[in-house]
Amino acid sequence: MNESPERDERHLARMLRKKAVMDERIASAPNECGLLLVLTGNGKGKSSSAFGMLARAMGHDIQCGVVQFIKGSHSTGEEFFFRRFPEQVRYYVMGEGYTWETQDRQRDIAAAEAAWEVSLEMLRDPSIGLVVLDELNIALKHGYLDIERVLSDLQARPPMQHVIVTGRGAKPEMIDMADTVSDITVVKHAFQSGIRAQKGIEL
Amino acid sequence: MNESPERDERHLARMLRKKAVMDERIASAPNECGLLLVLTGNGKGKSSSAFGMLARAMGHDIQCGVVQFIKGSHSTGEEFFFRRFPEQVRYYVMGEGYTWETQDRQRDIAAAEAAWEVSLEMLRDPSIGLVVLDELNIALKHGYLDIERVLSDLQARPPMQHVIVTGRGAKPEMIDMADTVSDITVVKHAFQSGIRAQKGIEL
Repeated sequence: MNESPERDERHLARMLRKKAVMDERIASAPNECGLLLVLTGNGKGKSSSAFGMLARAMGHDIQCGVVQFIKGSHSTGEEFFFRRFPEQVRYYVMGEGYTWETQDRQRDIAAAEAAWEVSLEMLRDPSIGLVVLDELNIALKHGYLDIERVLSDLQARPPMQHVIVTGRGAKPEMIDMADTVSDITVVKHAFQSGIRAQKGIEL
Repeated sequence: MNESPERDERHLARMLRKKAVMDERIASAPNECGLLLVLTGNGKGKSSSAFGMLARAMGHDIQCGVVQFIKGSHSTGEEFFFRRFPEQVRYYVMGEGYTWETQDRQRDIAAAEAAWEVSLEMLRDPSIGLVVLDELNIALKHGYLDIERVLSDLQARPPMQHVIVTGRGAKPEMIDMADTVSDITVVKHAFQSGIRAQKGIEL
């Protein structure tokens, strides 16, 4: 590319200022503790982000657990993949399918309760460093689980354990308690152009 | 929970309407093709979402490639993890560290050019079903790579190949070409409460 020395100099000045800010931020954030992360919003990437962090934690040899509260008929790739590592990931798929497929509220509640019981075992086990509660927000939004009970169980977990909660429509109480919250919005989606969900991306 | 039959009935009616909408959408989206996905915005979860989709694709035995355009000194967990599968993932870390660490624009440009050469090899290989171009948006934003050249190379890729591009500040031209774009915003971040980046989450 055709580059000017002036641009390089301006760039250096800007980056030096940025480095000073970043160094100060890192120095002033000394605490180590288990985080509660929430990934919400209508956009694509909430669950996949949680599964990316799962891979990251596995790269550090951290023991992990996953509970999928709502089994999409489609999202099977991550399950196939992470079930290959039973010595490092406990993987539970508890939901009975999206509620607009099952059409049975009492069955959905029973499934959510069973999923919470399994989650609780991991939330009480300090040997597990990361717990992914995939689509828990959906179960809370529909009132399948009581938010106060869920928050109190999350609060009582081992201090070094990270928890990632996904799903659109996160409750305000969940956002209040969380350490980090990302909201994922749709700018556009291939569905809108008539493209079917694709293996390895949505599936 | 204390539930009323009326609530169950309202729920059933709502879910039946929702199922009709979802079924129609799925039926009208018949095409199969490689997607271009863009994950942008200032929030946490862009790269981890790409790595979650990588795991999903690997679960379907799809051959994958990863190029990290900017190596954070910190984000090592995913690299440790995915390098365990050299038969399924070609993994390249090409960046020289964040620009505010390196303070050298010409070196950053050379690193980005080298990263694009490696990306191109995969973008020309129809045996690779998914290519993750992590933090490519940053290289484009700083003008390290020419956007027109990048878009034309992306357009020329094998028709069934998916590409995921991450990084804040996606260029409008990139968003225009993409099939699916998610914008991740910060609702809050643990940094703001003085908590240092944690292994398995940020690292």
